[in-house]
Amino acid sequence: MKISDVGENTLIEIIQDLISSSESRPDFRRQENLILGIGDDAAVWKTESGLEISTTDTMVQGVHFSFAYSSWYDIGWRAMASNLSDIAAMGGAPLYALINIGLPIDTDVDNVKDLYKGILAVGDKYSVRIVGGDLVKSHIIFITIVIIGASSQNLMLRSEMKSGDVIAVTGSLGSSAAGLRVLSGALTNNSEMHKSIIDTHLRPTPRIIEGQILAENGIRAAMDISDGLVIDLNRLCNSSGVGAIIHTDKIPTDRRLQSDFSGEEILGWALSGGEDYELLFSGPESIVLSVIPMMPSGATIIGEVSGFNVGRVSVLGPENKPIKLNDKGWDHFKL
Amino acid sequence: MKISDVGENTLIEIIQDLISSSESRPDFRRQENLILGIGDDAAVWKTESGLEISTTDTMVQGVHFSFAYSSWYDIGWRAMASNLSDIAAMGGAPLYALINIGLPIDTDVDNVKDLYKGILAVGDKYSVRIVGGDLVKSHIIFITIVIIGASSQNLMLRSEMKSGDVIAVTGSLGSSAAGLRVLSGALTNNSEMHKSIIDTHLRPTPRIIEGQILAENGIRAAMDISDGLVIDLNRLCNSSGVGAIIHTDKIPTDRRLQSDFSGEEILGWALSGGEDYELLFSGPESIVLSVIPMMPSGATIIGEVSGFNVGRVSVLGPENKPIKLNDKGWDHFKL
Repeated sequence: MKISDVGENTLIEIIQDLISSSESRPDFRRQENLILGIGDDAAVWKTESGLEISTTDTMVQGVHFSFAYSSWYDIGWRAMASNLSDIAAMGGAPLYALINIGLPIDTDVDNVKDLYKGILAVGDKYSVRIVGGDLVKSHIIFITIVIIGASSQNLMLRSEMKSGDVIAVTGSLGSSAAGLRVLSGALTNNSEMHKSIIDTHLRPTPRIIEGQILAENGIRAAMDISDGLVIDLNRLCNSSGVGAIIHTDKIPTDRRLQSDFSGEEILGWALSGGEDYELLFSGPESIVLSVIPMMPSGATIIGEVSGFNVGRVSVLGPENKPIKLNDKGWDHFKL
Repeated sequence: MKISDVGENTLIEIIQDLISSSESRPDFRRQENLILGIGDDAAVWKTESGLEISTTDTMVQGVHFSFAYSSWYDIGWRAMASNLSDIAAMGGAPLYALINIGLPIDTDVDNVKDLYKGILAVGDKYSVRIVGGDLVKSHIIFITIVIIGASSQNLMLRSEMKSGDVIAVTGSLGSSAAGLRVLSGALTNNSEMHKSIIDTHLRPTPRIIEGQILAENGIRAAMDISDGLVIDLNRLCNSSGVGAIIHTDKIPTDRRLQSDFSGEEILGWALSGGEDYELLFSGPESIVLSVIPMMPSGATIIGEVSGFNVGRVSVLGPENKPIKLNDKGWDHFKL
């Protein structure tokens, strides 16, 4: 059986089973400080001073990035931003980073410098300190970043959506996918507006500030949107044992897109485009309404959590008609 | 300029300069808790309860391992062991691990399971909990492991060798390189003894217990031998601003090797074979003599630290004649 037959989620389950059976051996000394292991945006454990969180992501040339569309600087930026976004999703503050990079030996030194400049440009915004890493020879380029951070007791988890909560997102959705479309040559027009849309894709902003404000003000359920609104909301629902209803007319999209793309295209990107790195969160309506004005990025209520249809996301269009989706995001291993 | 022109050490210096200039910007909020960043076996920072340490290493197919010599289980074991060895070198205790793996989509699920079984087999010995990671699609296989651990205030550092210290190593040296030689078909004899030498290469034992005993009993300078005794001792000398003298007749080698290999071959592997993952440490003679009997792996004094010839390792053979070395280990990026 190939991993492309079982897909990413099943493969993760298989590995989790191995780890659990290994840790259940009588001679395994369980550290009772671990609060959250595999399965959320980041791992969390207790220290005497509070909670510590860590997360990691890898980007591979030809899979997660391409030099046809991105500079070395862009790739460094996006690798760092996507990792910081996982810390944001927990409401944490990033502190330290470890950077591992695989490089062919004929790589230009200047390119490596540009890659680090991109990493540092976004890391510096949050005073993240790079404390270690590993440079290794490889035929293809890959970047693995680990972030270690801190959090107060007010963590946001994927498992904390409650029936009756309203669902909201920061910023707007779909611009990253639109940027990729512009980059891939769908439009030859090279206006300033297009450049700014491209930047949304290449240089996303992790919602660190927003995540901390949400967590400190009573929001308990969140994740970041990396694979697409519907697939990621589906993950939240599965973790929390609830269902969700979202309304297409409430989903915030980027005005800049309206002149060049159809409403249908824009909605498609907003629902399943991915890589927006906005925060998807839920909470009692009164709390959500009180935190929205505090968000530097803005935030918008897009639906509600339901106790029915557990694990399902219903997308309602005009006049509350259900919309069927073909593309719910992507699996990293399925063909 | 290519990275193969400058080599690994210069590339790391270039990156360190970029990071330092970035962190020296006035708006960068330095976390004063960081004790040790890039440059030692692991990064170290203060928490309210003590010190926390983290380290990471990446292994790439065709560079750091080959399926011609290793099973998936072996590769998992060695990846985990080499990371744990860096924690051992600081005198720390490993707690948590993050595992990132790049895999082609046609990889067998059973192979991935075997890889994890190897990782868990060595991790379980020290009750390391796997708390997260990332599985990504890639044309070549690579494994990045991060270990986060704890340490008392009694850290061992690369910079703490003092003139007058004696130098010692745990276990014996050269068996890993001999195992690789047997694996690569230098000998067709497939005896149990050869299998045990091969195992020394494929399934090294990180000296976690030894590292903790050394640190708790007053040893302040250590690192693990991954690239070879002479090159790694040279790194210790450079970090500490001292020189070193070692005596070939004192270097502990593996008796099992004597029947099949010449003394010269065995000494060559012991001096520059690499991947032994033994601990190289120094301290006042009285302390070193008192800790040696406590080492489960055994340990042997092999030389002394000198205030002269800073950054140089002198290797003395029979009758204290200096030995010239051609091969001082390997650079990961030089051709």
